[in-house]
Amino acid sequence: MNKPSIPKGTRDFSPIEMAKRNYIFDTIKEVFALYGFQQIETPAMETLQTLMGKYGEEGDKLLFKVLNSGDFMSKVTDQDLVERNSLHLASVLCEKGLHYDLTVPFARYVVMHREELQLPFKRYQIQPVWRADRPQKGRYREFYQCDADVVGSDSLLNEVELIQIIDTVFTRFGIRVQIKLNNRKILTGIAEVIGAADKIINITVAIDKLDKIGIENVNQELRKNGISDEAIALLQPIISLSGSNDEKLDTISRVLASSEIGLKGVEEARFILSTLKSAGLQNEIQLDLTLARGLNYYTGSIFEVKALDMPMGSITGGGRYDNLTGIFGMPGLSGVGFSFGADRIYDVLNALNLYPKAVVNTTQVLFINFGDQEAAYCMSKIKAVRDAGISAELYPDNVKMKKQMSYANAKRIPFVVLAGENEIRTQKVTLKVMETGEQQVVDTQQLVNILSARSLSAIDVE
Amino acid sequence: MNKPSIPKGTRDFSPIEMAKRNYIFDTIKEVFALYGFQQIETPAMETLQTLMGKYGEEGDKLLFKVLNSGDFMSKVTDQDLVERNSLHLASVLCEKGLHYDLTVPFARYVVMHREELQLPFKRYQIQPVWRADRPQKGRYREFYQCDADVVGSDSLLNEVELIQIIDTVFTRFGIRVQIKLNNRKILTGIAEVIGAADKIINITVAIDKLDKIGIENVNQELRKNGISDEAIALLQPIISLSGSNDEKLDTISRVLASSEIGLKGVEEARFILSTLKSAGLQNEIQLDLTLARGLNYYTGSIFEVKALDMPMGSITGGGRYDNLTGIFGMPGLSGVGFSFGADRIYDVLNALNLYPKAVVNTTQVLFINFGDQEAAYCMSKIKAVRDAGISAELYPDNVKMKKQMSYANAKRIPFVVLAGENEIRTQKVTLKVMETGEQQVVDTQQLVNILSARSLSAIDVE
Repeated sequence: MNKPSIPKGTRDFSPIEMAKRNYIFDTIKEVFALYGFQQIETPAMETLQTLMGKYGEEGDKLLFKVLNSGDFMSKVTDQDLVERNSLHLASVLCEKGLHYDLTVPFARYVVMHREELQLPFKRYQIQPVWRADRPQKGRYREFYQCDADVVGSDSLLNEVELIQIIDTVFTRFGIRVQIKLNNRKILTGIAEVIGAADKIINITVAIDKLDKIGIENVNQELRKNGISDEAIALLQPIISLSGSNDEKLDTISRVLASSEIGLKGVEEARFILSTLKSAGLQNEIQLDLTLARGLNYYTGSIFEVKALDMPMGSITGGGRYDNLTGIFGMPGLSGVGFSFGADRIYDVLNALNLYPKAVVNTTQVLFINFGDQEAAYCMSKIKAVRDAGISAELYPDNVKMKKQMSYANAKRIPFVVLAGENEIRTQKVTLKVMETGEQQVVDTQQLVNILSARSLSAIDVE
Repeated sequence: MNKPSIPKGTRDFSPIEMAKRNYIFDTIKEVFALYGFQQIETPAMETLQTLMGKYGEEGDKLLFKVLNSGDFMSKVTDQDLVERNSLHLASVLCEKGLHYDLTVPFARYVVMHREELQLPFKRYQIQPVWRADRPQKGRYREFYQCDADVVGSDSLLNEVELIQIIDTVFTRFGIRVQIKLNNRKILTGIAEVIGAADKIINITVAIDKLDKIGIENVNQELRKNGISDEAIALLQPIISLSGSNDEKLDTISRVLASSEIGLKGVEEARFILSTLKSAGLQNEIQLDLTLARGLNYYTGSIFEVKALDMPMGSITGGGRYDNLTGIFGMPGLSGVGFSFGADRIYDVLNALNLYPKAVVNTTQVLFINFGDQEAAYCMSKIKAVRDAGISAELYPDNVKMKKQMSYANAKRIPFVVLAGENEIRTQKVTLKVMETGEQQVVDTQQLVNILSARSLSAIDVE
């Protein structure tokens, strides 16, 4: 018998990992609900017709394809076999694949359910996705995505709301973050003004290095990338952009004075930033022209979140797009959305030790098992404790006390109840605090009161 | 462009369906936590080595197999191609499959993580499973399972606890149920006593028809199935078994007097039933000898749950097994577990209209959008409402009032806030109750107070 294993790039989640993950998703779900976002779920498998061609040629290769059930060879011709063309054969052998992200399934969902949807549709979705990437540290073949989108509304108030959600979620986590905002239209405007539309990525990459390499080296890099001296001169105020968001916007609008689309981008960013100011964020939001994520997909606002107290890539990001459902023959539906990077948030909370204790310690009290009669005596007590909403266990087997205590230790159970002959005679139990060893003899009502008070204070304090 | 579709046998879950499903799983998770059960999760894909041969020949065919990524044809020989043997080719083309249930992955998990597990291990798992069954009404190719098990303990207190969990969960749902209990050892005992071990299924099937066809016809059916007249005579007290659980146990133990294993089963059932009596169940538990689920897998207690107010198959069931992990080379680990039938519970709650209103109505108040200035005025009010934990939305676009009101109606939002010129001048807002049309002008604090009171009473009452 071979030792069992799991497919590479996949993971088991232990109780503690699950408790932490549930804490993350429950917190996010609570905030989504506060803002009126509704959850949907789509199947793990989509037709390959839905999935193929949506993620580029490389993406098509990274799709996990599911072998047709039944006689999957029946559609394969002898010619197919002789040619041994993997790509073609896959399309004959498989009709379905595991979804690669949640965006394409969401677009497919919107198109299929358009009659029953009330627009604007504010949805979120938390599900695993699958990619046949080469597994490496922090990159898995199965991982959770957590996406939120508003479709069917062009209002910038949606951007405002999404950023408020992000701000609220990280505040609840206790993770200090910086939110970065940019706008694709500003980038288009810059490209227009300097007459080098195809160079916009090189420009943002170069600008991003200002702090590290200084302005002279940035200019040199731009020149190396074929940007004209004239254009570089025009770019100077943008490269050395500094000050408050308002000051930056003023500078940019001067540079972009001749670009209609660029000024539109400035106006959008100004509206979002000023509305957020009046709404009051807990975290800083900063205009950042070097932000250029998913350039081809996004058409308006772009935003991204970085943890301040830990070096780590973006832990959340998103933006506005013009045409979500065009790929499925339903044009004109715009929206704005973002994705929480659940795995990275998990790592940040771990590294900064920010998980509330109550998340990991589930059971509050273990009733020790001294035998059938004693266990029977405990039944009504444990019921009273559970009826008060306190998580409790009775050790199922009458084994050595030491073994039962190490069970309590391993599960980090803070209290233990002992009920032997003496306790049964006096109709009481002995309550022991695991951390201090402190013991007291109490009746059922006192037991419930003490545990309720302690578990409340545990939630408050920790 | 073809109209998009989803693979047959799979489903999209709409916001309302998700809200209901979350209510089911959250309720179950809360009760599991009260009893110290911990959640784990395993990957959607397992190696085919883990999955194959665990569900019988039929089960192997129903596994969804995942095509190897990269050059999946490289391992296929010309000989394989000429033979066109689907079963063999599948094993060359695929190394992974989607899990078919949560039991085999759990067994694999226990074996792989045995060093870090604290026994007894009380775990639950809520995940989709996939089966290439022929889809039909109520049978899907992707559906959720919700399993709980205790492994590493032979104590019958585990059975007691699992039945308490079941009782608590259905009480919280408001579903009246009957819990049926049997024991594999009693069935073995019956077979022993009448000397027809292979006929035990025919016997239980025949006994089950007593109410419908009467004792004469039951006996005739037994005779037809090759049970001797002598054995049928011995069976009479069991076929016409009636009375309280205690009376039934007394009758059975008389019939099984000569069977050691049978008496052991009676003793186990007696312990479970008497302990549950002292613990106090909300729902009736009944000893039922016709219960014979998964006969080959279970070795001790068997239990099953039926809804009383709706004709529907078993909505929950489980039992004790001797050897969970033997298939993976780790013998001797026994346990007891069960599975909530989530899809069926969903249907029962729907049919009996038992979902709390608060489950489906998420957003409590919609702020109407009369333009940028008015929307900006609303920002601090909506923040105050959300800070009080009340779900609120600002309609993002300045469109006709009628459209905004129908959005509120469609999302069943009970309150609407109107803030125009007048309200801004007096620093107030108008709060409208959607159901009655009743309106009042209030300040921010009053707004929060009214909404808090209403949403609390909504949770209490409905």
